[in-house]
Order: sequence, then C-alpha cells, then structure tokens
Amino acid sequence: MGTAITPVILSGGSGTRLWPLSRTGRPKQLLNLTASDTMLQLTAQRAPRGERFGAPLIVANAAHADVIESQLAGSGVEDARIILEPAGRNTAPAIAAAALSAERDEVLLVMPSDHVIKDVSAFQTAIAAALPLVESGWLVTFGITPDAPETGYGYIKRGAELAPGVAQVDQFVEKPDRATAQAYLAEGNYSWNGGIFLFSAGAFLDALQTHAPDILAAVTKAMAAAEHQGRRIYPDAHDFAASPSQAVDYAVMEKAERVAVVPVEMGWSDVGSWDALHAISEQDGDGNAHCGEVLAIDTNGCLIRSEGPLVAAVGVKDLIVIATGDAVLILPRGSSQEVKRAVESLQKQGHITLDRPF
Amino acid sequence: MGTAITPVILSGGSGTRLWPLSRTGRPKQLLNLTASDTMLQLTAQRAPRGERFGAPLIVANAAHADVIESQLAGSGVEDARIILEPAGRNTAPAIAAAALSAERDEVLLVMPSDHVIKDVSAFQTAIAAALPLVESGWLVTFGITPDAPETGYGYIKRGAELAPGVAQVDQFVEKPDRATAQAYLAEGNYSWNGGIFLFSAGAFLDALQTHAPDILAAVTKAMAAAEHQGRRIYPDAHDFAASPSQAVDYAVMEKAERVAVVPVEMGWSDVGSWDALHAISEQDGDGNAHCGEVLAIDTNGCLIRSEGPLVAAVGVKDLIVIATGDAVLILPRGSSQEVKRAVESLQKQGHITLDRPF
Repeated sequence: MGTAITPVILSGGSGTRLWPLSRTGRPKQLLNLTASDTMLQLTAQRAPRGERFGAPLIVANAAHADVIESQLAGSGVEDARIILEPAGRNTAPAIAAAALSAERDEVLLVMPSDHVIKDVSAFQTAIAAALPLVESGWLVTFGITPDAPETGYGYIKRGAELAPGVAQVDQFVEKPDRATAQAYLAEGNYSWNGGIFLFSAGAFLDALQTHAPDILAAVTKAMAAAEHQGRRIYPDAHDFAASPSQAVDYAVMEKAERVAVVPVEMGWSDVGSWDALHAISEQDGDGNAHCGEVLAIDTNGCLIRSEGPLVAAVGVKDLIVIATGDAVLILPRGSSQEVKRAVESLQKQGHITLDRPF
Repeated sequence: MGTAITPVILSGGSGTRLWPLSRTGRPKQLLNLTASDTMLQLTAQRAPRGERFGAPLIVANAAHADVIESQLAGSGVEDARIILEPAGRNTAPAIAAAALSAERDEVLLVMPSDHVIKDVSAFQTAIAAALPLVESGWLVTFGITPDAPETGYGYIKRGAELAPGVAQVDQFVEKPDRATAQAYLAEGNYSWNGGIFLFSAGAFLDALQTHAPDILAAVTKAMAAAEHQGRRIYPDAHDFAASPSQAVDYAVMEKAERVAVVPVEMGWSDVGSWDALHAISEQDGDGNAHCGEVLAIDTNGCLIRSEGPLVAAVGVKDLIVIATGDAVLILPRGSSQEVKRAVESLQKQGHITLDRPF
C-alpha cells in the first residue's frame, strides 16, 4: 500500500427537505447552500489531489452527469471518474461499484457529497489516525461527536481502543427516541454515524461477499457489462437494478467483524433541513442569515434566501423564507421538518413537480 | 335639472401602501384587489349607465390612459370621457377640470376610484336623499358611519338636519389622535370623510371661484387650451401645472357656506393597507384570505396573495405575504402601515423602482 487514497464521493441523494431550492435536477449537493461553492465542490476540495489523495471517483445519478462534470471542472477537478447509476439503489451498491472500479489494495475515502465539515484539518487528522488499521484490513467509520440528543441520526457505540483515537465499534444503533439519545450523550461513548468511511476496496468487497453476496453479484455483473465513455462509467442498467437497495451500514458495517470508529469533532452537519442551514450559517447581530436580494427591517432570527425575487421582510421573527423564481416557502424556524410533508402535499395536488427547474 | 347624474371618477392615486402589487404603472385602483374586477371597474359599475346616471367622466394620470380605457371597455363602459392630467395636482384641480367639462346644471357624483362599497343600494339611497339639496345649490358629501376610532381619516361633524337623512355640516376636522377619535365616536354625531361628493358643476365652480380662485383660473385656462383626441381630453400641461395642488376638502368643502352631509353605512373601505384588505376579504374558517396559487398548511389569520410564484406557507400565523414575479413582501398582520417605510427604504437603496412592472 502507501499509494494515494481515492476519494469516493456519493452524489445519489435527491432530498425534498430543502425544497424549493432543491429539485430533482438540482438536489442539495449541487447547490451552493453554505458558500459560493456547491456542497459537491466543497466535498471534492476536502480531499485535494496531491500526495495523500488521488483522482476522485464520483457515484451519481446519471441525470446529473453534465452538471457534476461542470461543477468539478469549476473546482479544478478534471480527472474524476464518474460512475453514473441508472437508478438509485442506496449506498451499498454505489460503494460496491466504486470498489469494483479500484484496485483491491486501493484505500477508499467514502464521503456523502452533501455534508458540511468546517474543520477540515480535524478530518485530515482523523483520516491519518485511521490509516494504519485500514492497511491491516479494518473497515473504519468516522464518528461525529454529538452536541445534541438528535433523533434523526444513527449512533455508534464505541468499544475498546485499538490505537490512539481509534476504537473498535461495539454496536451500530438505529435512530433512537429522544430519551435514548439523551442517555447516549450522558454515557459519553456514542458517536453519530455520519456515513463517512475509510477502507481498502478489497476489505470492503470481502465483507460484502460475506454479508451481502447478492449485492456484490449484481453490481459485479453490472460493472463487467458497463459502458465506458471517456471518464464516465455507465453500469448495465438491468444488472444494476437487480441489486437489492440497501444502505452500506445495514448491508456491511453493522455485520462485519473488524469495524473501527474514529471519533472526531469537525464542525460536521448534514444540512438536513432549513433549520440546520440557519444553525450553521453566519448570522448578523440579530440572528438573521440572509442570502440573495433581501431587505430585512426589524427582523430577527430569520433565514431568508432568494434565488430570484426581491424579498422584503418587515418586523418578522424566527421565520424561514425561501424564494425562487417559481415558488416561495414560508414557515417558522424549528419546524422545517414539515417541508417534506408540504412538498408531498403539493406534489399530490399537482401544484409542483420536483423536476421543474426554476 | 332632472337630467342624469354624471359620475366623476378620480383615478389620480399612485400609493405605495399596497406594494409590491401596486406600482406606478398599475396603482391600487387598477388592480383587482377585492374581486375579479378592478377597483376602477367596480367604481364605474356603482353608477351604471341608465335613467339615473349618464356617461362617466374619468380624471386620471395621462400615463394610465390605455389601461383605463381597456378596463372600462371590459366593464362595458364605452362612452366615458377621460381627462388626462399631465401631472397630479390633488383633487381640487381634478374636480375643477371635470366641472368645467360639464354643463353648469349637470349634477356630478365625485367618487375616488379605489374605494370599496359593499352595500351599493345604501349608497344609491343616500344619493337619492341628497339630490333635492343638490338641485337647490348645496354641496353634499357622504359621511361614512365610523365603526372604529380611526386616526387615518378626516371627520365631519354633523349639524342641524336639513331633510330626512341629510344634515348641515357643522365642521370638517383633520385626522384626530386616538383619544379625540374615541370622543367623536362616543358623541355619535361624527362621520368619516370618505371623499365622495354630489353637487352641480355650477355650484362647485362658484364655490371654487369664492374660496380658491387661483385654482379655478389655472384649470380654466388649461381646459380652454386642452387637446381633444376622441374621448380623451388633455389639459394644457403648463397651465394645469400652474394650479396650486390642493385637496378639494381644504380648497372648497371646509370653507363653503352651504355644505351638507348624508351619513351612510354602506360597507365602505378605502383599502388603504394590506390589513384593511384582509379585514374586508372573505376568510376561511381559520381567518385566512388567500388569493392566487397558495398552499397553506396549519396556517391561520393570514393574507397570502400571489400574482406569480406558488406560495407554500406551513404553520404560520397572522402574516401578510404578497408575492409577485419580482418581489415578495412579508410582514405581521397589524403592521402594514410599515409598508410605506419599507418601500421608501428600498427605493433609496436602489433595490426597486416603482415603475418597474412585474
């Protein structure tokens, strides 16, 4: 080993929780939500080409090929290979496709494309701590140090220390209720499962063979029959669709023997809602985080974003307002988990189709 | 006399209080705020062509000539004459221009174009009560029965009864403070001054000659030199601009001798703010008045209007949301007097020009 790590960036998501900005054609990871760069660009920049990292491998929805290539080029990433999924089958098949495109001893850094990591240097340190175990065949996950009893994430219970800053995984636990989450925080030996992994392609494929052989079989067939167009790789649609749709946590990580966790505090957020975006955004003295053409008078605690119309807010408090050229969303802060319900209702009534661009 | 009454519709306003819907090119009276017809159309329909009413005379901003003609045609009014002001000089010169375009014994019903009157039959009854006095030379104003101690209107103190339902005006009083307004309501002999008048052209011009001869002189000159294009009348711009800019209340009504008031309860509103529009709008069981493509979930007490984008509101309360293709206004109900300030601020910062159509 000792060769460069291959960043594997998973760009399969198409969430509705950030409507009206996120649409089928431009999901969260392709938006510049937290900076002038998009979340995909920021993810690529977190593992820059150099001594440590090689050219990235992107696994994405085939419909996004052009915009992804153009965003990567905009970040100076010209040599990424892109595996274009004919249909989303969750993360286990996506990572399998990436692992099958790598050498067996290639180390893969698997990263969702739509997370924020503010302290990249802490992330790099965690990667360095994990590498020796990865080189001896462990599957490593990065455990986010929790700062609140969140019920929206899975948790990882840490066991015995394997090396400085690296613990054996005692148990992966499903999203807990609030009381359980509070107990985990009090116990102090739990981390959030952020879905960021480091392992060699060979170790991952071996574990997949043991714990989810049907996924490995289907994806192996799909990749063997893949069509290559320059740096684009199109797995065979029929074979890929034959794979079970499973998250890598469930298919492999929760079942494999040698799984380690590196707990890390790195300013992580999955920006899973407008409230989460408000929380991580820079705010003015009145707790407002505005973006776009916004005039706010006597306004506090608000997140107001516009991609189009001028938004004038006068005397309002703790509101989320998101405006695009064709839609405006308004809801109180703290209730942005309701967006999904609103979007479903709008879709049902035929008011919107998420594939309408704005 | 006995000839038909000539409706005189004043369409000079260009308020900013209903931004972002009202713009310089399409002020309040040209919007369909309260019904599918615009406020100008509703005003014209209040005095329909027939035995009682003749063809209307409109006094308007020259910039609105086309849209006014098209709206009148849309209401079946094809024979209106339109006096097109080269510049707004308030209501006294506007009414003078109308009176100079009429026969001396023609009875004029002067109506602002941007008020709502829900009970048109009560209005007609009040007109009938006023007519005998008008035919003997009185200037008559219609006094709106107040239902709240409003500080935004002038008040009229009623004196001796002149005829059933008609009183001599004791005094016009300026916009009062709240305590004074409350005292007026308690006394019971005060009405709001709604700016609706009935008088003969000759009686008005005689009073103007007595109390504001400079206005009469300037407008007489402007009308003598007016350019006529079909039913459009363009007063001479230079002469018209030479008239003092004065409200008819100040120039004539407060000073003239024989001024009568007909108090009337007719569901009147000047729709002077978004709050006023919410108050007079039909509301659902949760106190919402929505218009346009609006999805409201768990929402109450809101006025949400869209002329363009879909507006989705989730879990909000007592908000005013007005969306057009290029601007969105959000503020709490009860604070819509702040709109003027917001618009001035936006204009100052160059964010908007009110003459930008949407």
